[in-house]
Amino acid sequence: MLLVVLDLVGIAVFAASGALGGVRARLDTFGVVVLGMTTALGGGIIRDVLLGVHPPATLRDWRYLLVPIVTSLVVFWFHPQVAKLRRAVLLADAVGLGLFTVSGTATALAHGVPTYTACLIGMTAGIGGGALRDVLLREIPMVLRKEIYALAALAGAGVVVLGAQLGWPDNPVAVVAAAITVTIRLVALWRRWNAPVARGVSG
Amino acid sequence: MLLVVLDLVGIAVFAASGALGGVRARLDTFGVVVLGMTTALGGGIIRDVLLGVHPPATLRDWRYLLVPIVTSLVVFWFHPQVAKLRRAVLLADAVGLGLFTVSGTATALAHGVPTYTACLIGMTAGIGGGALRDVLLREIPMVLRKEIYALAALAGAGVVVLGAQLGWPDNPVAVVAAAITVTIRLVALWRRWNAPVARGVSG
Amino acid sequence: MLLVVLDLVGIAVFAASGALGGVRARLDTFGVVVLGMTTALGGGIIRDVLLGVHPPATLRDWRYLLVPIVTSLVVFWFHPQVAKLRRAVLLADAVGLGLFTVSGTATALAHGVPTYTACLIGMTAGIGGGALRDVLLREIPMVLRKEIYALAALAGAGVVVLGAQLGWPDNPVAVVAAAITVTIRLVALWRRWNAPVARGVSG
Repeated sequence: MLLVVLDLVGIAVFAASGALGGVRARLDTFGVVVLGMTTALGGGIIRDVLLGVHPPATLRDWRYLLVPIVTSLVVFWFHPQVAKLRRAVLLADAVGLGLFTVSGTATALAHGVPTYTACLIGMTAGIGGGALRDVLLREIPMVLRKEIYALAALAGAGVVVLGAQLGWPDNPVAVVAAAITVTIRLVALWRRWNAPVARGVSG
Repeated sequence: MLLVVLDLVGIAVFAASGALGGVRARLDTFGVVVLGMTTALGGGIIRDVLLGVHPPATLRDWRYLLVPIVTSLVVFWFHPQVAKLRRAVLLADAVGLGLFTVSGTATALAHGVPTYTACLIGMTAGIGGGALRDVLLREIPMVLRKEIYALAALAGAGVVVLGAQLGWPDNPVAVVAAAITVTIRLVALWRRWNAPVARGVSG
Repeated sequence: MLLVVLDLVGIAVFAASGALGGVRARLDTFGVVVLGMTTALGGGIIRDVLLGVHPPATLRDWRYLLVPIVTSLVVFWFHPQVAKLRRAVLLADAVGLGLFTVSGTATALAHGVPTYTACLIGMTAGIGGGALRDVLLREIPMVLRKEIYALAALAGAGVVVLGAQLGWPDNPVAVVAAAITVTIRLVALWRRWNAPVARGVSG
């Protein structure tokens, strides 16, 4: 149950990040909605394809479609000032990353894959939608450019897996794990924790 | 039977749209053929991956490979004047969108997925190949930029699903559904039905 | 056994090509590692998704993750001079193409798909990781731009399939097939065997 809620909230914030990116790229209504949907549903579809869930759960439940469409339309009509669009994309993306990584890891565990595989699939679910959004907008994906992006996802996935190993109750673990990923990502954005660039290239 | 014909004609026109895009981007023979094949086969492969058909039908039948290779080579040698390349890409893309959406929706229904899921998978099959082509050529995909693109696919998928629900004969429904998608898309191109851009961005 | 070795060496060189591309694009440590991993694992994951192997083998075996991470970090710290980065990417990519095409074709045959399908899946495995790397770095994929790229993969896949048909011993065939692909690709790079560009566009 909590997984469905995490998934739906994750879908909403990823849809918002996609729609905001679309407004920034001056797409029209339809483009904004399609980009919002793709960003919101991409990670879950990739997760289900990797797990062999056919057809992907996201394509079977109308709520998974209604949420990103409504979110994208709301963003289209009430988006922030242009100057603040970029910050809004980053914020929504960070929240979506946390929620999807956690729901993806937990879903993978529920399908009986090893914990190691569950971490990787959860991270892919968390990172996938945003990467798709950036590629479609012809930007280098955040996961390649931003400090502490994949690492934030790894932390959340690790907590879910650890909790499952130790038999901790699922729901509190999920909430804590998502909070950890989102917090790491936001602190990184805040502090601009840039990792070093390779010697001799940045100079 | 009609599905195979729709699929093969769809593959030919999508191959043409990819090859024309490749000529426009000044790719050499091999690049044009590879891009034609990717555009032509991408949608069907995505459809089969989502439906859990392994390996994808497109990779098992030599006709599905021969058609896009021959089409791409023909386009490479006899492409229109440079000035008309863009229009030719759009035209071939519109026809491919209609044919693939319809064959994708019907294939999904034949695999027993719910009608709602069949619509989404059919639309993905119709939109996927062209999106792949545009991403590989570093363009923002048409489905994000163009008026009434996803909506045209939705209309065709909806007619297929409606026909199946009401027990109408498959083949006439498929032809009418494809014609509806292609017509909507072409009229949209004709009239440049632009949907509104978000407030405060376009100005 | 040899397949695993080919796969791991292929993963290392593809990771190197991705990491080198990342250094060239001035990504930070994390970006370089993520791009190295994506390039290294992308082809194998696509192969397993097409074959219906769930979850993909690459996500179940820790060696498949350790090798690209270590390789990417080594490249990040000891990459060649900036001026030579491009050549190093091309070289590593050629070796990876050969190894992955061969291991992909052999893996597909081992899953009982027809020889024709095995060739296509093997080529996709060989080409996929590099195409992903280029798309993520916003470059037109090599397979579209470079002389004799897909053809080099086809030659290696063809030899594997031929050897299997004729009952030749697997391991020597695999080594020879990989050597053929790598050699064709390197000779093509050496000679700049450009295929003709379509009439009336290049002028």
